[in-house]
Amino acid sequence: MAFQPNSASNRIITISREFGSGGRTIGKKTAEKLGIPCYDAQLIQKIAEESGFAADYVRKEGEDAVGGWIFPIITDRTMGMTNQDTLWVIQRRIILELAEKGPCVIVGRCADFILRGKADCLNAFIYASMECRAARIVKEYGEREQSPERRLKEKDKRRAAYHRFYTDMTWGHAQNYHICLDSGTLGINTCVEILSRLYHKEVIQA
Amino acid sequence: MAFQPNSASNRIITISREFGSGGRTIGKKTAEKLGIPCYDAQLIQKIAEESGFAADYVRKEGEDAVGGWIFPIITDRTMGMTNQDTLWVIQRRIILELAEKGPCVIVGRCADFILRGKADCLNAFIYASMECRAARIVKEYGEREQSPERRLKEKDKRRAAYHRFYTDMTWGHAQNYHICLDSGTLGINTCVEILSRLYHKEVIQA
Repeated sequence: MAFQPNSASNRIITISREFGSGGRTIGKKTAEKLGIPCYDAQLIQKIAEESGFAADYVRKEGEDAVGGWIFPIITDRTMGMTNQDTLWVIQRRIILELAEKGPCVIVGRCADFILRGKADCLNAFIYASMECRAARIVKEYGEREQSPERRLKEKDKRRAAYHRFYTDMTWGHAQNYHICLDSGTLGINTCVEILSRLYHKEVIQA
Repeated sequence: MAFQPNSASNRIITISREFGSGGRTIGKKTAEKLGIPCYDAQLIQKIAEESGFAADYVRKEGEDAVGGWIFPIITDRTMGMTNQDTLWVIQRRIILELAEKGPCVIVGRCADFILRGKADCLNAFIYASMECRAARIVKEYGEREQSPERRLKEKDKRRAAYHRFYTDMTWGHAQNYHICLDSGTLGINTCVEILSRLYHKEVIQA
């Protein structure tokens, strides 16, 4: 089962995910199961080191649109690259380097788009209902002044805008991925099981 | 792993699919593997019998928009229900009856939307790249005067319009389904394997 034309290169699972869907956990558990590295926090650290920005800044600005970004067209770039553009260039290069280095799981940061045609990728999208995600973010990050639903809607909007701007892809459009999984319904472990089996090409192709 | 709140009812796999993605074959093979009926041609036959329309007419009009339907808003309903509305009402009732009757696989016809909250459904969406689908429809249905890409684009447009009109859902939006599979990349048998395993709840939930 060839995921990409370039089947000589390292096999990589890219995980795009809705905030609160457990996509990061699925990436981590899948990588553990496969015995390969999962780049998420590490990736942020690398980008922070190379960019000189704080890790927390990279975490926030590295995949979600900010401020005027909800309407990228009005974002002022007459002064040249924004910080986010700088981050994009650095994280793009780091992701390409990591893909060269060896098999791995990469969570978020448009890795699916960056590696398209350049690596043997299995691109997954993880999502869940608003209800499931709201329960999860309260459990993971605690209560906030803003309701979890509102936090999720804002995050979804910013992530979609970021993706539209840098990849020109519609966020959540199934056809952008090889597999899309509703983690709220199927369960985290089911998603891990499916992805690791696909990685190993356990199932016969037609 | 509960797909729907109503886990007491029959388990049903609904398959929505892009034209040429092999979704029908996946539904048929999955049903065979599970030893349950697959309603596709049979469903069309039932609707034809109850509506009095020819099976071929039902096949064409039962899930794709026609004529002005690409812009449903300008479709004239001042004279009451259209033939498609009549078909919708009949096929909706038949799908609800089939879901009551026993476990099954239902291909197309908005079964996922019709059975939402009414049955223990696993809703799957099957799609593939334009290139894979073009090769498939030429193999399945032969060459036509119109290029396969053009036939697919038109079919996609009509199916999306039909869904938007009757279900108010965005066609191909991952969040509408429990699982979305790129049959062109993963292969027909892999899709069958994943769906039948999920049906049997073989994989442990988190």
